Amino acid sequence: MRFQGLLQLRRLATAATLRQRHSSHIRTLTDTGTHTHGHTVVRTLASSASPLPELTQITDHVQRGNYATLNDKDVSHFEQLLGKNHVLTEDLDGYNVCFLKRIRGNSKLVLKPGSTEELAAVLKHCNERKLAVVPQGGNTGLVGGSVPICDEIVISLQRMNKVLSVDEVTGIAIVEAGCILENFSLRAQEVGLTVPLDLGAKASCHIGGNVSTNAGGLRVVRYGNLHGSVLGVEAVLANGQVLDLMSNFKKDNTGYHMKNLFIGSEGTLGIITKLSMLCPHESKAVNLAFIGLNSFDDVLKTFVSAKRNLGEILSSCELIDERALNVALEQFKFLNAPISGYPFYMLIETSGSNGAHDEEKLNQFISLGMERDEIRDGTVTGEPGKVQEIWKIREMVPLGLIEKSFCFKYDISLPLRDFYSIVDVMRDRCGDLANVVCGYGHLGDSNLHLNVNCDQLTDEIHKRVEPFVYEYTSKLKGSISAEHGIGFLKKDYLHYSKNPVAIDWMRDMKKMFDPNGILNPYKMLA
Amino acid sequence: MRFQGLLQLRRLATAATLRQRHSSHIRTLTDTGTHTHGHTVVRTLASSASPLPELTQITDHVQRGNYATLNDKDVSHFEQLLGKNHVLTEDLDGYNVCFLKRIRGNSKLVLKPGSTEELAAVLKHCNERKLAVVPQGGNTGLVGGSVPICDEIVISLQRMNKVLSVDEVTGIAIVEAGCILENFSLRAQEVGLTVPLDLGAKASCHIGGNVSTNAGGLRVVRYGNLHGSVLGVEAVLANGQVLDLMSNFKKDNTGYHMKNLFIGSEGTLGIITKLSMLCPHESKAVNLAFIGLNSFDDVLKTFVSAKRNLGEILSSCELIDERALNVALEQFKFLNAPISGYPFYMLIETSGSNGAHDEEKLNQFISLGMERDEIRDGTVTGEPGKVQEIWKIREMVPLGLIEKSFCFKYDISLPLRDFYSIVDVMRDRCGDLANVVCGYGHLGDSNLHLNVNCDQLTDEIHKRVEPFVYEYTSKLKGSISAEHGIGFLKKDYLHYSKNPVAIDWMRDMKKMFDPNGILNPYKMLA
Repeated sequence: MRFQGLLQLRRLATAATLRQRHSSHIRTLTDTGTHTHGHTVVRTLASSASPLPELTQITDHVQRGNYATLNDKDVSHFEQLLGKNHVLTEDLDGYNVCFLKRIRGNSKLVLKPGSTEELAAVLKHCNERKLAVVPQGGNTGLVGGSVPICDEIVISLQRMNKVLSVDEVTGIAIVEAGCILENFSLRAQEVGLTVPLDLGAKASCHIGGNVSTNAGGLRVVRYGNLHGSVLGVEAVLANGQVLDLMSNFKKDNTGYHMKNLFIGSEGTLGIITKLSMLCPHESKAVNLAFIGLNSFDDVLKTFVSAKRNLGEILSSCELIDERALNVALEQFKFLNAPISGYPFYMLIETSGSNGAHDEEKLNQFISLGMERDEIRDGTVTGEPGKVQEIWKIREMVPLGLIEKSFCFKYDISLPLRDFYSIVDVMRDRCGDLANVVCGYGHLGDSNLHLNVNCDQLTDEIHKRVEPFVYEYTSKLKGSISAEHGIGFLKKDYLHYSKNPVAIDWMRDMKKMFDPNGILNPYKMLA
Repeated sequence: MRFQGLLQLRRLATAATLRQRHSSHIRTLTDTGTHTHGHTVVRTLASSASPLPELTQITDHVQRGNYATLNDKDVSHFEQLLGKNHVLTEDLDGYNVCFLKRIRGNSKLVLKPGSTEELAAVLKHCNERKLAVVPQGGNTGLVGGSVPICDEIVISLQRMNKVLSVDEVTGIAIVEAGCILENFSLRAQEVGLTVPLDLGAKASCHIGGNVSTNAGGLRVVRYGNLHGSVLGVEAVLANGQVLDLMSNFKKDNTGYHMKNLFIGSEGTLGIITKLSMLCPHESKAVNLAFIGLNSFDDVLKTFVSAKRNLGEILSSCELIDERALNVALEQFKFLNAPISGYPFYMLIETSGSNGAHDEEKLNQFISLGMERDEIRDGTVTGEPGKVQEIWKIREMVPLGLIEKSFCFKYDISLPLRDFYSIVDVMRDRCGDLANVVCGYGHLGDSNLHLNVNCDQLTDEIHKRVEPFVYEYTSKLKGSISAEHGIGFLKKDYLHYSKNPVAIDWMRDMKKMFDPNGILNPYKMLA
């Protein structure tokens, strides 16, 4: 029972009169010639020839920690442990510069262990010598967490990239930390499973990095967060000890759930080397609606209606405002928006086991929304190519904003009632200093990506934006980092979301696991 | 679109010939006169007049820890803090004896703080005085985790029982730890939400106890575990500090996810006082199938088929073997099994937003199973009263086994392929020494409840059963405690599921949060 192409207009409106009453209508996507795949662009951006930023240690006046300095003996030791090919001392720019090109470290050494044991031996040496390290996955993070700040040794997990097993019946997969998310997804798909995590950087990011940063992404609304999906981890601690907290079971109540400490600790407590993850069965049918709405109030009503009417098949509920969409369309001419002229757009995806049932539910949901004048126009498709094409629009929005010019990017959780107000408030505050102030993000998870785009970073606009954005979020008891983490860029703002008692206990935790502070220094709690 | 009563036979078999080929048929449940509600029985068992067990300190040769002894000045201090009514020194049997009547402590004092601040003041005093305490919720745990072993002060959360808020739109509820699960559920239902946790003890257990023990239960297969559902906790630490890790958001990546440490730490790191939980929208339609199968191989095939064909609407997948069912039917005459004569029974529940769609999926699933001779007979119902009636059978199974005679109860996770083999192996090992060796449990989560019922506890049968059950589980890399936790009864077996490095780190964690060891001593890591 496969879903039959695009839904037809007659199915979406409950009656002809309804169609006449609404000027809106549901269009089909037309083919749009050449399509550059989003992820290619991601990689291009990260490796493009634009000038390197100044060293962060200089721009941010970072005082180097009391660590030892790498010497030739260390390098020889690492070469003995890993083999010469896996010890890099040249052409390290790609490892030193963050994805956003805002942070640049000055590491002289990149190590690529091929196994947990090799990594353990590396860390044992670093700990004994007091050499600081930074673990690095796909280096797609947005808070400067995966690059050195001073001269930390980069430990790349690239070589530990195998999917070790996928159990078709239980849905439990075991995978090495350096496996690229997309490769893991493809392998899971082969046996009818879905990795419960999907994000724009999937072609580059590593699953170990995703887990270390508790990555969110597009499917949290359906599959929940990684604390629920990750069943076990193996991590190497600062002293080189291997902490095996693997579990192949959904239920395992034997002692403290320490694995969860490593989920989202951004490589500051240990380096994740392996993990087991619960993967749901792949949905036979996926449908995606791209709809236009006239007000944020209508957006909220449509979200509530989606939860009620789509229930268990709702798999994504994303918001893009008009300004954000327009930037993406300007920057990437290959994108083709199916509708235009609305202040708000939503992507609503359903995934289910029966295409006909899902189609009926989605039709009913859209008819209701149109009847109530909440949904004004839109496209619905179940054709995989078209689904991908619409998703590409959403995926290119953040990249468009980065490409356009300097961009302040915020990733906050806010109560739904106040979800969008901060965008308007910020636009007023910035006035002519900003080119574009816009918002998009995971509405279904109360997670807004607020972006302020301007010609260049100046003190004047910086002061308009920060710390206001954090104060505003804090007043609403929101989270100043919903999914990107703290890393280097947000470490000074942690206190807006965590109280002093909690931060003190975090420091104690850090001291316990990494007394010499060699793991990912200058980040999170620094 | 409400589900229309019981499914009809003609809908379940794909053709008349199919019905003839199978001797099985789908029957309707008949009314069965008086029904004692399961939970009433739970409470009766726990408070019944059967003789108290000997003090555990004596039977188990427990060396009292180096704690201070309660004196009159302490009691006066507590009375000043909480008011005389909330400081109990008499009639403490109910607080000293565990649900299974296997553990009996000798506490002389029960404290009932009414707020986080009161609890903080109590713990501050206890820590300064080195007085040991045991936190107690509904006291329905099965590993002796919630009762004193020696003379620990019992801290009952009973009075902190309010549902503080339920957000209809986001599904996020904030609730005090002492709230009874069923009360929380009812409150959530009022606004169309479901608490993603359901278990037999729901009428007595506290949500704080559930979270402290990372309780599993009947709906994990659908909604995942509490690490995913609990968004924030507030806990009072041993030193009286209030650690506020509350969050009202699904996404909050600001520092270590310390809240997860308190989920499943069984009150040994702190006492949870408040929590926020993500509650999914209530399903409009619930259908339940009770089916008979001829072999465990058919059970597995049926499970795989349920995952494939029921997909996103599958909300429970339980197994009961014939022996377990028969004990429940013998012990509780008011129970009425819809079918009989099969070695295995499964309860398969669906919950969805569209009754007609769910019915169609369930019919297709059952037809397929019958066609393949995997499902032999069964009942399907969508009528709430009948659904409850069938669930009651499942809920009464563990109680029947406790009522019958002495019962060794195990709660293990095993690879599905080996899931049931341990029951057969154990039956052979026990021979005539056991009355009944049976298995039931949460097949959908690989979680088996293995029970060995015998006339009385003797050394001989004890040696046949333990440590064999743990060794067998450990060899298969299973979990020796899937959902019940470690508590007092399993502390000597922790090493079968956790390696020495992990246990060492747990001890360090305990020492960090509770240097005087006053929180729930003699449990888990003791």
